[in-house]
Formats: sequence, structure tokens, C-alpha cells
Amino acid sequence: MPGKTVLFLPDKLSVTVEPGQTLLQAATKAGITLRGACGAKGVCGRCRVQVKSGRVSLSGQGRITPEEAAAGWVLACLAVPEDEVTVYVPEESRLTEHRVLLEERESGVLTAIETAETSLRPLFGRRLVTLAPPTLSDNTDDYGRLTWTLQQHGERAPFWAGYALLRSLPRVLREANWQVAVELAAVEGATEIQGVIPASGDLKGPFGLAVDIGTTTVAAELVDLATGNVVATAGTYNRQAAFGDDVISRIIYATETAGGQAALREAVTETVNGLVGELLRLRGLNPEDVRAVVCAGNTTMVHLFLGIDPTYIRLEPYIPAVNMPPPVRAAELGLAAHPEAWVYCLPGVASYVGGDITAGIKVSGIAAAEPLSLFLDIGTNGEMVLGNQEWLMACACSAGPAFEGSGITCGMRAVSGAIEAVRVLPGGFEVIYRTVGGEKPLGICGSGLIDLLASLHQAGVIDRGGRFVPDQESPRVREGSEGLEFVLAWENETGTGREIFVTQADIQNLMRAKAAVFAGIRTLLANVGLPLEAVEKVFIAGGFGRFLNIRDAIAIGMLPDLPLERYTYIGNSSLKGARLALLSQAVWEEMKAIARRVTYVELSVGNRFMEEFMSALFLPHTDLSLFPSLGKERD
Amino acid sequence: MPGKTVLFLPDKLSVTVEPGQTLLQAATKAGITLRGACGAKGVCGRCRVQVKSGRVSLSGQGRITPEEAAAGWVLACLAVPEDEVTVYVPEESRLTEHRVLLEERESGVLTAIETAETSLRPLFGRRLVTLAPPTLSDNTDDYGRLTWTLQQHGERAPFWAGYALLRSLPRVLREANWQVAVELAAVEGATEIQGVIPASGDLKGPFGLAVDIGTTTVAAELVDLATGNVVATAGTYNRQAAFGDDVISRIIYATETAGGQAALREAVTETVNGLVGELLRLRGLNPEDVRAVVCAGNTTMVHLFLGIDPTYIRLEPYIPAVNMPPPVRAAELGLAAHPEAWVYCLPGVASYVGGDITAGIKVSGIAAAEPLSLFLDIGTNGEMVLGNQEWLMACACSAGPAFEGSGITCGMRAVSGAIEAVRVLPGGFEVIYRTVGGEKPLGICGSGLIDLLASLHQAGVIDRGGRFVPDQESPRVREGSEGLEFVLAWENETGTGREIFVTQADIQNLMRAKAAVFAGIRTLLANVGLPLEAVEKVFIAGGFGRFLNIRDAIAIGMLPDLPLERYTYIGNSSLKGARLALLSQAVWEEMKAIARRVTYVELSVGNRFMEEFMSALFLPHTDLSLFPSLGKERD
Ligand code: FES
Ligand SMILES: [Mg+2]
Ligand SMILES: [Mg+2]
Repeated sequence: MPGKTVLFLPDKLSVTVEPGQTLLQAATKAGITLRGACGAKGVCGRCRVQVKSGRVSLSGQGRITPEEAAAGWVLACLAVPEDEVTVYVPEESRLTEHRVLLEERESGVLTAIETAETSLRPLFGRRLVTLAPPTLSDNTDDYGRLTWTLQQHGERAPFWAGYALLRSLPRVLREANWQVAVELAAVEGATEIQGVIPASGDLKGPFGLAVDIGTTTVAAELVDLATGNVVATAGTYNRQAAFGDDVISRIIYATETAGGQAALREAVTETVNGLVGELLRLRGLNPEDVRAVVCAGNTTMVHLFLGIDPTYIRLEPYIPAVNMPPPVRAAELGLAAHPEAWVYCLPGVASYVGGDITAGIKVSGIAAAEPLSLFLDIGTNGEMVLGNQEWLMACACSAGPAFEGSGITCGMRAVSGAIEAVRVLPGGFEVIYRTVGGEKPLGICGSGLIDLLASLHQAGVIDRGGRFVPDQESPRVREGSEGLEFVLAWENETGTGREIFVTQADIQNLMRAKAAVFAGIRTLLANVGLPLEAVEKVFIAGGFGRFLNIRDAIAIGMLPDLPLERYTYIGNSSLKGARLALLSQAVWEEMKAIARRVTYVELSVGNRFMEEFMSALFLPHTDLSLFPSLGKERD
Repeated sequence: MPGKTVLFLPDKLSVTVEPGQTLLQAATKAGITLRGACGAKGVCGRCRVQVKSGRVSLSGQGRITPEEAAAGWVLACLAVPEDEVTVYVPEESRLTEHRVLLEERESGVLTAIETAETSLRPLFGRRLVTLAPPTLSDNTDDYGRLTWTLQQHGERAPFWAGYALLRSLPRVLREANWQVAVELAAVEGATEIQGVIPASGDLKGPFGLAVDIGTTTVAAELVDLATGNVVATAGTYNRQAAFGDDVISRIIYATETAGGQAALREAVTETVNGLVGELLRLRGLNPEDVRAVVCAGNTTMVHLFLGIDPTYIRLEPYIPAVNMPPPVRAAELGLAAHPEAWVYCLPGVASYVGGDITAGIKVSGIAAAEPLSLFLDIGTNGEMVLGNQEWLMACACSAGPAFEGSGITCGMRAVSGAIEAVRVLPGGFEVIYRTVGGEKPLGICGSGLIDLLASLHQAGVIDRGGRFVPDQESPRVREGSEGLEFVLAWENETGTGREIFVTQADIQNLMRAKAAVFAGIRTLLANVGLPLEAVEKVFIAGGFGRFLNIRDAIAIGMLPDLPLERYTYIGNSSLKGARLALLSQAVWEEMKAIARRVTYVELSVGNRFMEEFMSALFLPHTDLSLFPSLGKERD
């Protein structure tokens, strides 16, 4: 049976898929990421597309009404093309892609700290050496002479070389008159000699990649390994989003759909390769110029990226296949890099505390700190680490991707045009906001959503339970298709010509996200019998944007009511940690030591977490005594 | 231009070669090893073949007479087929192949010592382990659990695994109910996990190969790595012999003929694969059952086998590309073994003291001995090591392949039918001999040649200079095509129906070989200012046969005149060393340490060696005082 061709509009992208593959799979193949939130189960209803011509067979109707169905609307995840079809993909079914801001330095309430300096000794580097030419009385072999010289220069034995190199080594050394640049990769305690080239040649770079593979978003930095400078940055949505919002739905898709694991691997590989292509184009480089790649991601993301079976991550007792994956060649993963480049995935701790968190521990410095410190990564999953130089304890609460702009009707990443700060004036009649880059608003990102939740409550638009107060006068509060909603920006103000609004469902989503974070913190502290006030430093990572309004985050009851000076926002610490490891063999080794030190706390054991979660589903909390500083503002 | 087809008779083997390739290359391709001794230069005249039909173009005539040329005789190395040709290859132009004797235990004057026992811990092994199943409170990842368990069992960290393994690990462990056999390879200080299989499966082997890659002959043992037992042995001529007798002519062929290096690599690979096929057939096994290969060979052989440029081995200051080659996958070399099997080449010392000698040092035990000891490997090259537990010093003298039965008209390897001991009665009228296996004689091997030289001298057939005494009465001394020759066995006694004889040229060949050995020993001792008598133990390796008549070796002036009890014959110590390393990671590491300890003495520096060599071109020597025990027999 031949493949079926699908033409996507308005993009005019055409792809051919295997018989039996869905329109959702076809869209992913075409590079169009649909907003599948349910793992392609036909439940979330977010992957709506309109069939313009051709025949599709449906394995279900989903939330499509009979009138819509008559007009050709289907759920892409339930529709299989039967012949050549043309499909229209509306804007609202897409995860929009924007280029991440290269400049992250604007002032804000709580801006990101800069990464600590480390001595530059990257996982891949070039070392210029001059070998003593051999004589009858110094007749060491060429390879032995090379490795001896490298050792004199402080490179780490044992050395390792492929046969392509060894085979030409005698000629190369003599043609270069014994002055060569040696390309070295640090791999598992050994040094691989990847190349020996004349020192006189044109030696640009080498370059490396730091990649943060988030469940929702993927970000990458192109780094000059000779100087340690980041020369380009890019970010986008993870194309896996088409197959589910969170790690659990991805694992289900991987394990219960035929070819699912391969499809997820392809999706993330293409996401990363897309970013790499963008970065290389920016700097006029080729994939071969990328000589090392460090990836940070949660355990599920890393498994899927490496093509490793994630089944048991989801099943009690929640066991990953591997926490510390050995380095693997870029060629084996199909990455757009030098085929021999090693890809290093930062070591993780457990099924729900991955290498991205190890990165955060390193970047925040809590593993070396004296005061009791808390690290929070509020991404799709919501992980946290409590501890200091003596001990480290971590847990994960399923916070959901709300603060990454996903799962929220008008949510978006913290890129140009995202509302990053917002204030709703009393009564909800007026809204003041600021967007990233000062552009016309396109949507709202994490930091904006925290502001919004606090502000809607303070303005009296929503009650302590997060429900819209009925019968309000403001025209911004209106009846939508699924209940009340609040309009932040009218059609004429926005960059898209469509309104930006939050629904009741969006607000419940945010409430659950913030409650999960607070419940996690409380549970971790309860484990060591300490109160909230014992925490002397809090480091917050996540994709909120360029800054985070801590006062608002406390006001909604997401963060503990501590003096503001205890808080530091460290931005995307996963990406920063990946870069630090890329630039320092010592940091890479340290990451492994850190991962081994962390004790994992499984929140599903016992009732504590669930009780804390239920109590936190209020603004700020059922127990107001936990938020003494909010006393004055309380209603 | 299409390839040319060549049919070889009487073998009836047909091959197609590229335009421009010679009949010698065609024969090698067909598996017929011709006796090219000059490196396919048309000089030695040994690769004579007769063109029966078809047209060849000749780049020279060589030693072919006009009459012979008229009858179709050509030198195969100078003849290029121009269309389909049929070629007859006479027996005398071939290196005959025989199966090596499996039994080496017959008594003899000086029989080989058995290999010292070592604790069994092979470079590849299977380890049965039971993992503690994970629980919520013991949530270590699968791979971490596996490596932790292996470490508890004494396996060496760091561990390493390929992604094929990691990808299926979760399923395999659970299906096997956590009881698995783990396949482990020791590679450069780390342990590679090559396989994880249910412990309940059918677990034959694993098997490994020990290979001695000699310039003239190649020998291999198939070893059961679970028990340490050798289960099959085989040996043959190195097919590279078609391209030259010794390492120098091979290097010249490799570097000066287009495609020469590749042709030599192919020839030795096919030689080894032929042996492996034979061994596997004997035991009903497949290449995939071979999980580790250890090769010992001189530096040139190892370079050519690994496909590494040997150019600078031959050019002053004689520098190898690599003395300690990193392990390489069997697949990369095209070896008939499991594609992931590592191939380990024993570490060498210098361009002319290779891994075979390191093996000999280990097998003889001289590196750990208190008394001053001498190790001699009298193969094609003639290497020797002097020293003890304090110091080790080595050199190489080009002894030539005479004692391996090559370069001698009726010479052969020490296989069934070879004359291994011989006595010529006074006057040269009668000859008594013994053959390997008691078969009718086919030729004469190294130990027989030493006996013969001593005996011909003692019988008065040759003089002190090794020249035939003229005008003898014995019908065994006769005029041949190139001067006088001596018949050992008449047509009717032999297994081939052809006479077995030695020519004047053969004897000069043997004289040079024995002189080179003695000169080497003297030069090495002179380096440390010691007399011959200072040597307390002598270990002799080489392909002489199953034993060596030391008294005769002293009588011809090859070995120093020391009490016989100081001598031990250790047979093929290169092959034994390869097997020891295969069976013991500790020995493999020790070999590297030994190779590093040895000081190489370059004989071409200074005149000493050449002077010693000239003085030793007599029977036994110009200076008879060096051989006091021969006083009574002296003429
Ligand atoms: S309904 Fe299609 S992905 Fe959820
Ligand atoms: Mg993240
Ligand atoms: Mg040898």
C-alpha cells in the first residue's frame, strides 16, 4: 500500500505518510506542532483541523459537534487519510513558534543571576602542541609521542583514538613538521583523540551546543569552545507536544501506540535539529563544526531523546532505565552535528528528578552552600530540591505546563510579544500590561500569568477559590463558550487581531499548578521536620520570562511567605547547567557527584502531599497563618 | 575496462582481477600463496608459473630463460593478464599449507615448557548476576542497579554500554526476572557491557581467539573463555608471503605499489579468517561466537593487519606509528568474529621489537627473574631480549625466514612430514632422519636444518665457511642447476615423489641466519659489558618444530656455548602470550608495563653488530675460543 499525501494549509506544506498514520502524525512530520494535550487520545479536543478535500477515516468524533463535522472539522489525532487530502490548520490548534530573545538583561523585579565563572576546560577542545621529532636515541612511536606530549600539557590519560586517525597519523605528523592541533574529547574518565591537524591550518571554533530539552519547550545555545562565549541562542516548542502535554501522556503514547516511541524520538530530534540549523545559519557554520553537545532534560525527555524505553518510569516503583546515560555519538542519534561529536546528557536522580534539576542544583550553588536552601524548577513538571552542603533532598510535583504558557488558552512562551507583567485595576475594568520587547501583545507567559492570578483576586474579579465572581459590571468579564472568561486585551490592541483572554478552566489550571508547587515545598520540609521560615535562600528556575514578581507569587500562595531578599531568580538553569558542563570537564564530573548525593522523596508515598495540595487550592491558602505578610491585604 | 578472469591449474580456481593487476595478485586472491621472496620485483624468480592459454603482458623477463619463455613460463609478479588466461602453478612455486599438529607433546631433546598458570579472568567474559528488584524505597535506575551489582561482584568501573543495550535493558531485566548473564569486555581500563541476556538461556562459550601473526606463518588457537581451555589450533603460511619474504620487502611493497598496503592487509586478514573458519568448523561454531581476539605479531605485521601506514618503520630513525594500538572492533578489521568483539594487539617496544616479543618476555618469565636471562625468538626476524627483574634490553637482527622453512628450497613449516631431526654420517653417504608424525618426508623444518648444518660440517661435506667440499665420492653430493647440492632423501623415500635436497645457496642462507643470531647476542652483551658466560638462563622461541637440538645449535655457532641445562625451548611464545592475555586482564595490563620497561638497542648504530656478524659467518665462528666445549670435535 503506498503512502498518503497530505497538503497542509495555509502553510502549503505537503508530506507523505505511511498508511494508518494520523493527520496529527502527518502534521508533526510537516513541522507543524499541534496542541495535542491528551496524548492523541481524542479527549482534549485541541488538535482540531478542517479537511478541505480528500477522504479521511475517523476512529472517533471527540468533541466535534455534528455541524462542525459537516463542515469537515475533525480531530487530527483521530483522522487517518485514505487518499490525497488537503487540510486546513487553524491558528488556535497550533503551538506558535517564536524566536527566543537573545538579550535577557532588561531590569525586572527579580532578574536572573549570571552563571558563576568556571575555568574553561571544555568537554571538547583543541590543544596546540609541538612534538619533539624522533631520533635514533628517542624512538618512541608516533602515537606514544603524541599522548606523552598531551600528558605533559596536562591532558588526562588514558587516551583513546579511532583507527581512521591512527592510520594517517605518521603522514600527518611529518607533513605538519610535528606542530599540530589535537582535537580532544573527554569521555568517561578517558580522553579521545578525535583529530590531529596541522597547527598552521584555519582553526575556527570548535563549537559546542548546550541544549535544554523541556517537556514543553526546547532551548539551545551555540557556544564557542575556544572562548567560552555563547554566540547564538534559540528556543522553540518541543514538537513532541503534539503527542501529549506532560511526561505521563508522552510515555503512554510511547508505550501504547505502535511506533509511538520512535515518533516521539523523531519529534524531539527534529526539534533540536531545527534549533541547531537556526543557530548554525545565524553564524554561517556547518553541522560538522559542532563537536560536543550537552543536553539537560527531565528523565522522560532524556529517555525519549536517546531512544530508551521509558515504560517503567510511569509504573510503580517508577524506575528509569538509566539516570546517568553514557555519552553517545551524534551520528547515532541523528543530530545535526559532527558525526563523532559526543552527546552528553546531564545525570539525573530519579524518574521525576532529571538532569535538568542536577543542572539547577549546580547553577544555584545549593549543593555547596551552608544555609538551608531551596531550589525550585517550575517547568512542566515542577521539581524542587531542599538542602545544603551536607544533604540534598528532592521531589517532583506534577505542576503542569501552565507557567510555560502551555495548556492556557492564550498562553505562550516568554518571547517577544508575550505579556510578562500585568495589573488588573479594582473592579476589573482596566488592565495595564507590559510585553516582552514592547511589542503588541500576542499572548501571556508564565510571569504574566502569576501577576494576573494575583491581580484578578486583588481586583475582586475572582474569589479565594479562583472562581469568577458572578454578575460583574466590567465588560472584560463575559460569558464564553465554556463559562466566564476575562479579556486582557481587545482585538484592536493585539498583534494577532484576536483577543487575549483567560477562561475559568485556565484559572483552575493555574490554581492547580501553584498549589502543587506549594504542597511540594511543604512536604519536603515536613520530611525533615522544618517550618517554611527555616529556608534561608530560595532559587527559582523556570520559563516564566525574564523576571518573576515574587510578591505576586507569594500572594497567590505558590511561594512561601519569606522576606523577598531570600529569593533569587536564576532563569533557565537547565540550559545554564548544560553550558557549564560543556565548558568544564570538572563541572561534568561534579554533576555526577551531585546526582549521586540527592535523596529522592516519592510524593505518592503517604497522604501528606495530597493533603497539602488540597489545602493549597485557595488564594493564597486555606491556612492564612502561613502567609502573615498578606494580612493587611486579606479580605 | 572490465576485469580479467584467470583460471589456475591444477586447482581449477577462477578469479577476476582489476585491469593492471598481476598474476601474483590474482593467485593471492584465489588463495594460492606463491613464494614471492623479493616483494614482487621480479628478482627472486620464485613465483614462476606457466601460461597455458590467453595473453599476458610482461613488465620484465626475470630469471626466465628464452626456452622457458617459449614454453609459456613467466614470473607471476611481472605478468598482467590481457584477456582470459589459464595458468599452471607448479608445486615448487607454492607455499604449501598443512594443518599444524594439535599434539605438541612428544619427547625431544629440548621440549617446550608449558605456559604458566594464571587466574582466569578473560578480556571477555560472562558474569551471572541476580539484581535486587527495585522498590519505592530502592529506586535506583536499571543501568545503575546493574553496574552497582557488577561492582559488588568485583568487576571494574567505569562501565560502558552501547545504546542498543540500554534501549532494551528495562524489558530484558524484567523478562529475565532480574537474573541475567552479563557479557563484559575489558577495554582500556574500563568495562564494556556488551550484552545482558536471561541467565536461563543456552550459554555455550563464550570463545576467544589467540593469534600469532608471523611474517612467514600465522597460527591461531580457539579458546573457551569460560574454562580457559584451547579447543582447537590451526596454522598456515601468511598469504602476504606472496609480496615478499621479510618485513622490509613487505613495507616496500606496501609503500611503493599502488594499493599495496590494502593488498597486504587483505592478504593477512584472509589468512587469519581462513584459520578462524577452520577452527570454527572443527567445533561447529559461528563467527558470532568469537567474542574477543588477541593478536601478537611484530610491529610491521601489526601495522599491516590494522591498516596503519608502516612507511616510517623502514626509514631512519625507524619509528612505528603505534607501539600500543588501542583495541579495535572485529567488524572494523573485517575479521570473522562477533562484530563487536574487541581485537587487542599485544603492545610492542619498537619498530623491530613487537608484541610477539613482549609475549615472549612474559611467557619466559625473564622480566620477573633474578638471574640474568636471555630470550631469543628465532622467527623471520630474529629478536632477542637480555635482562632480569631490574632491566630489560632488546634488539632485532634480520635473521631471515630460513628457520621457518622459508627461503630454503625444500624448507617447510614444522608440520606433519617435515624432517625435524637429521644426522649425516661421515663422508655424507648415509642420512638418518625423523619426520614429524613419522610420515614420509615432505621437506625439512627449522630444527632439522640446524641438525643438518651441524651434521654436514661434522661429516666433512661442507667446510668451516659452509661451502661444499669439492670432489666428494658420495652420490648425495651432486651438481645442481646452481652449483653443488646435497640430497637428504631420494625420490622413492619421500611423500611427494620428489627429492629433498639442500643447495649451496640454502646453506649460505642458513649461515647468515645463524650468524645474525649470534652477532645479536654478542652485541647485546657488549652493551652491558658482559661475557657470554654471564647468561644464566636462555629461553628460545621460534617455529623450529617441537624441539630443538641445542648441541647442534651450539655446534653451528648460533647459540652461545653454555651448559645445556641453562637452555629452555618455549615453542611459539607469541601465540602463548596472546592466549595468556586473552585469558587474563592482569596479563594484558602486565604486557603493557613490560613493553614500557624494555630499552631498545638499534643494531644499525655503530659497527659492532656488523663486525660480530662477519666473524660469525663460520662454523662455529672465527674465534674458536668462544666455543670451548667444541674443542675435541674441532678439525
Ligand atoms: S484530541 Fe487530539 S490530541 Fe487531544
Ligand atoms: Mg525545564
Ligand atoms: Mg614469531
